[in-house]
Amino acid sequence: MKDVYDFLVIGGGPGGTPAAMALATAGKRVLLVEKGEGLGGTCLFKGCIPSKILRESARRLRELREADGFGLCLPSRDVRIDWYAIQQRKRALLQRRSEAARQRLEKIPTLDLAYGTAMFSDTARAVIRTHEGAEQRVQFSQAIIATGSAPSRPPIAGIDHPRVMDSEALLEIDHIPERLVIIGAGPIGVELGQVFNTFGSQVTLLEAAPRILGPVDRELAGLLHVRMAASGIDIVTGCKIDRVASTGGGLFVFYHESDGQPAHKIADTVLLVTGRHPNIDGLGLENTRIGHDRHGIEVNDHLQTAEPNIYAVGDSVGQPMFAHWATAQGLALARHLLGQPAVFPGPETNSAVIFSEPEIGMVGLTEAAAEAAGIDTLVAKYNFAGDARAQIAGRDAGLLKIVCEKESRRVIGVHAWVEGAGDLMGEAALAVKAGLPLEALAGAIHPHPTLTESFAQAARTGLTKTMRIAPH
Amino acid sequence: MKDVYDFLVIGGGPGGTPAAMALATAGKRVLLVEKGEGLGGTCLFKGCIPSKILRESARRLRELREADGFGLCLPSRDVRIDWYAIQQRKRALLQRRSEAARQRLEKIPTLDLAYGTAMFSDTARAVIRTHEGAEQRVQFSQAIIATGSAPSRPPIAGIDHPRVMDSEALLEIDHIPERLVIIGAGPIGVELGQVFNTFGSQVTLLEAAPRILGPVDRELAGLLHVRMAASGIDIVTGCKIDRVASTGGGLFVFYHESDGQPAHKIADTVLLVTGRHPNIDGLGLENTRIGHDRHGIEVNDHLQTAEPNIYAVGDSVGQPMFAHWATAQGLALARHLLGQPAVFPGPETNSAVIFSEPEIGMVGLTEAAAEAAGIDTLVAKYNFAGDARAQIAGRDAGLLKIVCEKESRRVIGVHAWVEGAGDLMGEAALAVKAGLPLEALAGAIHPHPTLTESFAQAARTGLTKTMRIAPH
Repeated sequence: MKDVYDFLVIGGGPGGTPAAMALATAGKRVLLVEKGEGLGGTCLFKGCIPSKILRESARRLRELREADGFGLCLPSRDVRIDWYAIQQRKRALLQRRSEAARQRLEKIPTLDLAYGTAMFSDTARAVIRTHEGAEQRVQFSQAIIATGSAPSRPPIAGIDHPRVMDSEALLEIDHIPERLVIIGAGPIGVELGQVFNTFGSQVTLLEAAPRILGPVDRELAGLLHVRMAASGIDIVTGCKIDRVASTGGGLFVFYHESDGQPAHKIADTVLLVTGRHPNIDGLGLENTRIGHDRHGIEVNDHLQTAEPNIYAVGDSVGQPMFAHWATAQGLALARHLLGQPAVFPGPETNSAVIFSEPEIGMVGLTEAAAEAAGIDTLVAKYNFAGDARAQIAGRDAGLLKIVCEKESRRVIGVHAWVEGAGDLMGEAALAVKAGLPLEALAGAIHPHPTLTESFAQAARTGLTKTMRIAPH
Repeated sequence: MKDVYDFLVIGGGPGGTPAAMALATAGKRVLLVEKGEGLGGTCLFKGCIPSKILRESARRLRELREADGFGLCLPSRDVRIDWYAIQQRKRALLQRRSEAARQRLEKIPTLDLAYGTAMFSDTARAVIRTHEGAEQRVQFSQAIIATGSAPSRPPIAGIDHPRVMDSEALLEIDHIPERLVIIGAGPIGVELGQVFNTFGSQVTLLEAAPRILGPVDRELAGLLHVRMAASGIDIVTGCKIDRVASTGGGLFVFYHESDGQPAHKIADTVLLVTGRHPNIDGLGLENTRIGHDRHGIEVNDHLQTAEPNIYAVGDSVGQPMFAHWATAQGLALARHLLGQPAVFPGPETNSAVIFSEPEIGMVGLTEAAAEAAGIDTLVAKYNFAGDARAQIAGRDAGLLKIVCEKESRRVIGVHAWVEGAGDLMGEAALAVKAGLPLEALAGAIHPHPTLTESFAQAARTGLTKTMRIAPH
């Protein structure tokens, strides 16, 4: 660590790391401070990646159970789940990714990496406290806050019990819970609910809102709800959690149903996933004029805080909280700070995947959001029940919806519920970002048999129906 | 069947069926004649779809064998392959798809479907002979030939033996061959070679060219070659087949190696996949001025034959022989014939997937083809060894290459070798078709963790390296 840097970047997750690398690669002297044990942030260590690793074993378990239907006969249906091996695979993969990131950083001579915390003394200086206990003052010209977020704990009586876990703790659990009650049916609750259901847990989802996955297209969320219920997951929506009580028989989650009736569920483990809050404490923001509230640090269109030389990206700024969003912000900011033309990402081009089973992929506006914004829409649909690739894979439950601005037929949103939807979102993100019309999707030659044909097919149907012209 | 039609469409495969439907949906009286037992053509009954159904069982078998690594312990490693069940699943799925196509057609009142053959009497009349033996003359204003192709049998001594099969026969085989020799290492040979290798066949690939998968990007084909060899497939390139001889001990395939040394392989089944030829015989082309040779029917840029009212699409026109290419041609032609603006597909925007393991997806020009065309190229690469989604899936062998025109950075080709490459080709096809630059791929927000991030990552690396600018 040196005494003076061009840039201080606080947080080595998906927002801070790419920004630090881009700045240092351009020759700037950068200090990157990471408070965890390795590079990668919540996404790598406590969020997207570990949950997807558990999900991969669940996906493969589901396929094992279907083997008969594909002409593959197991000697017995008793597949033993080696939970320790699954957790070991997870740890090894996280370690591998973090180490690879570290090695990439080490190759950049003007980038220093410190494991510890950073606290602003004023708008040009910070105190770095390393995990080894060393304390050093550094001076910086500009700074980027990329400190991410942490699970929130709502004020519910009894949730301090050690078996009431946040998602980070549940991902580390050393056994498969027998009865798992999940409070919060957002993306994390839905994903982990299905994963543990597949592994044999008896899963209950309790959601305060009238439906699961609030911001997701209503039709797709509804299809997933039906699928989850059919697989034995108990879903209660519109409920109000009262308290959690521990007894010899387990954890009792008391709540009121939507009609006001009191009810309860019994669990041995409770997962609490009701939201996340930005990591702001300890940054020394009180020594600056940087504004913030419980939703995040206040920034302008260029991600600049009230202090002109200090910026913030990713979860620390608030919603939307996605790794790829943080990366897009971090990279745009780095370009901007280097004096290069930069387009800051707009929420109307953001993408997301919910790794449910099947996956939900989404880019841009939902039909409802577009209509709420006063946009006259045309929605082109495709049902994967008739899709060759989906039928071959034995995964033909699915629906694609392409939302267009009616007059121009420009694609402003894409929403898919189908196994593999995540990898279809590249085309969707490109179409939305480039403002391409349905004709472009219909005219691109999509190879057969792939799921991507759905884009061309939906576009053709949409064009035929609305314009009374022959398919492209 | 009526006596007079606006359009006679010969062939109910991926070229003819969409064209017939588009024309009839627009109110034209259309007769569609299919010589097979159901709608779908080679693709559905004898090609893409059945091979992918066998491959799906092979893919699942491979995953079963890997179960341990994902914490799933089978009681024993003895998975019995129920070949009959696999073939039954295949037949059921083909039937389902063909029946669905028939039902879609039936809903269009101006479309008649006849199962049989059509022969031109002259340029306005044809004789339809149905499978039931009925014979009827019909008059048409315009006609579309979409008769597809069939496997070629090269002039090799001894290949008339019933155990020397074309791909159509091998897909119907009633058992898994013990020793399978495949003559021809094109897409079909490679796909089926890997499938039967996974099912336990001892597989040999004999290829006349110096390498497998001639038109595919050399680097990707080379990576696949190494993978196949490592899985125990015996690959011989640069060889010249002399003859096949049958003895009590099996089929002997005699050939000369690239250095001129005579050699042989022993098989119980030989697969011959050295090419396909257009189905032209029996069409009565001699009663017209339509030109053709062994490569296909001669057409102009509008797919028009030498007879101004007769057109041809798909395999009957020759290379490239792909279902999606035939569909793109058929739909463009229908629009053209309806007097609507139509862009006929150009080979520089065509796409293809080789369903090898891992898949190879490709769109547009290879690096070599672009350079041969005098285009100054920039190739942006991405190695999936570091990819989050690929690592999670346990499928991190892979490479993506994005070929750009250097000055404009417009994407002119995309080539990927990775499991799931097929579904990445939608974005590739769109980028190439719309002529988008690397900046568009880098700037679109690809969701994390998905394989599609590779497009943004490759684009960023390409931009950073060549333009010395910070990543987008």
